Amino acid sequence: MAVKASLSGFPEWLPDGRLVELQVLDTARRVFELHGFTSLETRSVEPIDVLLRKGEIDKEVYAVHRLHGDDDGRLALHFDLTVPFARYIVENAGQLAFPLRRYQIQKVWRGERPQEGRFREFTQADIDIIDVDHLAGHHDAEMAIIMAEVFASLPMPPTIICLNNRKVLEGFYRGLGVDDIPAVLRAIDKLDKIGREKVMALLVEAGLRPDQATACLDLADIRAADDSFVERVRALGVSDPLLDQGLAELAEVIRAVNRDHPGAALVDLHVARGLDYYTGTVYETQVVGFEDFGSICSGGRYDSLASDGRTTYPGVGISLGVTRLVALLLGRDLVEVSRPVPSAVLVAVVDEGSREASDGVAHQLRARGIPCEVAARADKFGKQIKYADRRRIPFVWFPDPAGDTVKDIRSGEQVGADATTWTPPDTDLRPRVVAATDSDEGAS
Amino acid sequence: MAVKASLSGFPEWLPDGRLVELQVLDTARRVFELHGFTSLETRSVEPIDVLLRKGEIDKEVYAVHRLHGDDDGRLALHFDLTVPFARYIVENAGQLAFPLRRYQIQKVWRGERPQEGRFREFTQADIDIIDVDHLAGHHDAEMAIIMAEVFASLPMPPTIICLNNRKVLEGFYRGLGVDDIPAVLRAIDKLDKIGREKVMALLVEAGLRPDQATACLDLADIRAADDSFVERVRALGVSDPLLDQGLAELAEVIRAVNRDHPGAALVDLHVARGLDYYTGTVYETQVVGFEDFGSICSGGRYDSLASDGRTTYPGVGISLGVTRLVALLLGRDLVEVSRPVPSAVLVAVVDEGSREASDGVAHQLRARGIPCEVAARADKFGKQIKYADRRRIPFVWFPDPAGDTVKDIRSGEQVGADATTWTPPDTDLRPRVVAATDSDEGAS
Repeated sequence: MAVKASLSGFPEWLPDGRLVELQVLDTARRVFELHGFTSLETRSVEPIDVLLRKGEIDKEVYAVHRLHGDDDGRLALHFDLTVPFARYIVENAGQLAFPLRRYQIQKVWRGERPQEGRFREFTQADIDIIDVDHLAGHHDAEMAIIMAEVFASLPMPPTIICLNNRKVLEGFYRGLGVDDIPAVLRAIDKLDKIGREKVMALLVEAGLRPDQATACLDLADIRAADDSFVERVRALGVSDPLLDQGLAELAEVIRAVNRDHPGAALVDLHVARGLDYYTGTVYETQVVGFEDFGSICSGGRYDSLASDGRTTYPGVGISLGVTRLVALLLGRDLVEVSRPVPSAVLVAVVDEGSREASDGVAHQLRARGIPCEVAARADKFGKQIKYADRRRIPFVWFPDPAGDTVKDIRSGEQVGADATTWTPPDTDLRPRVVAATDSDEGAS
Repeated sequence: MAVKASLSGFPEWLPDGRLVELQVLDTARRVFELHGFTSLETRSVEPIDVLLRKGEIDKEVYAVHRLHGDDDGRLALHFDLTVPFARYIVENAGQLAFPLRRYQIQKVWRGERPQEGRFREFTQADIDIIDVDHLAGHHDAEMAIIMAEVFASLPMPPTIICLNNRKVLEGFYRGLGVDDIPAVLRAIDKLDKIGREKVMALLVEAGLRPDQATACLDLADIRAADDSFVERVRALGVSDPLLDQGLAELAEVIRAVNRDHPGAALVDLHVARGLDYYTGTVYETQVVGFEDFGSICSGGRYDSLASDGRTTYPGVGISLGVTRLVALLLGRDLVEVSRPVPSAVLVAVVDEGSREASDGVAHQLRARGIPCEVAARADKFGKQIKYADRRRIPFVWFPDPAGDTVKDIRSGEQVGADATTWTPPDTDLRPRVVAATDSDEGAS
């Protein structure tokens, strides 16, 4: 279902694969809208200086210019949807109602080295809630709850949304007496990649005493499915007001998620998130059994991502990596697609002189929401059935002045039918994407 | 609903405007799928040489390169969806079933001078049918019928799909004894812009005798809602086998469209279409009363757009200019949106201690497909109602241990309600986009 990209890092899908992607996109949109999020898009390009202001990502940016350019400013393709959304908020604040709940599903581009699950062009599905001056804390749990609902609605392996809070980390490090907190965050962020030993070395390099470094690693080791993590942090003997605040916030988030989706989330104090604008709750999401594929859904709270100098817009957001998720589902054969075309019915054509009659049948089926197509050529019926079979279209309709019939080409059953009333079973109406039954892969 | 683009040619919409765009996109997709078209996407970039091979559009192309680029080939953003699709067909032919019916809805980029209805970044919704070696003629009418169905399903002014056939033009010019046929096509293509006098001059400049030039202009004057155009062309006294073929094809297309959508199309022999790969039927679409806005849906048949040297893939396609249509609907105030958010219900919060009860109501409503949101703050009820009112959310739900109530804030009516059974009227379930009732504009 996936095709080998003829341009590295720029994936394209075959029809089956695209249906899997559509299933992810449609599910995300349906859940987002049920939760009152409104759709927005921003242009694909931003002035380069707007993009480079955020984080150290200049190597990842694709610059854009007219081939015979003249009047353009320096533009680049956006590398995420958060920075453009922040710009949009400031530009249009006067015409928006806050708190604003918006979802945004678009492609983004990063010039990173392509590898499994990492692309140069990919689609993200973001939700954010933005308010003016102050954003209520209960929205942090809401982000995780909504994404848990998306995952539960998709034919995919179980996921775990890993939660942390920057205030817990920064408060803890401060309470320990650490000076260079960003260096510690950067080191802890590498735990999965380089392991405990090497992070220990990095921490000592950053000026920490061995006992301080050990405490940082002990904190990072804490995982809990409920608010029991609070006691375990307390047991490490560090105290700081910011730590207290972070623990209270994080405990509230895990309790709220557990009320709605027990088991969907896990407090995991080694989640640091690289981007420097997060100021509270942070999220990462692992697909169980495929942890090495990386996080498929990440985000966090930022107290002041957008600001126009006078007004500050705090927000919380989470971003589903659609392309990475689809690449996982396709690449590891985790899903099956019932057919690669929307058509539930192929209307056969007896001869070119009676094509109009076949068109008429199709017209009546479509008027009742049944996707169908008319055979391209008035071949022998056997050939027309083969045409349907190759596309896994379940039904072939035979117009007949003496009475139409419709054949289920899977069972061979052929029955009389009236185009104004016949309806296929619900499960055949649209292509279905389901978990693969014969896959050896999965949680292990 | 439209916002002034802070970057010229790169439009962005407010939530209301985005809902109008979604309505266009969803309608197009629904109709395309009913007709058995499968969704595909191609990457946004192509090697520059692939793009420049087609037509004289090099000034319009946006080149793309990594800011600290190294290994990239020369890439550019695609300027339409046809050229990338042709490349995709050749690359993946072995894994596709032909004839292939695909729709493709994506953004494209052109570095043209922005003006009303003309953008540098815009969305197209294309359908194409591609076959191997030979593509049946009846698909030409199908393209127009499907787009007529899309237009009929949208809250917009009437449209006319203007039909012509390149064989009629080229056969007629050849029958007249014209040498430089491309020069005549280019001149006729300018009729709308520069008028009959100046086109006459261009034709004479191209080497035509005055009587030949007059005949070309007389041909271009012919318009007909049925196949009566054939006689009128014959009356001009030119004969040529290619002309005969073109007339027969075009007559068949208008007859077939009239069977399904009487009045949706018009044979209009001045439609030439600039792009040089068309070889038969061509389409352009005018919105009645807004003809100066330009064509919102164009395309044609190409006998060999894609080829891998051994195999040729003929196709026919038509492309809906989504952004141009949305810009027309928004810019001329032709539509109204019932509300800018998906939420049909705001669930009020009595106090922060009982937020859980409000979340529970929202959970039950969503489980039955009713989009809703929970008030962000436990403000006084008057303030929560004002919050809903500002977003035009029609219903506010008041949880109450003694029995919940729901209020229609338009009528003020408040009734007892159970979150497991209450349902809003169908018309309130989702935001609706309808034709503006108080608009002064329209067909004139």
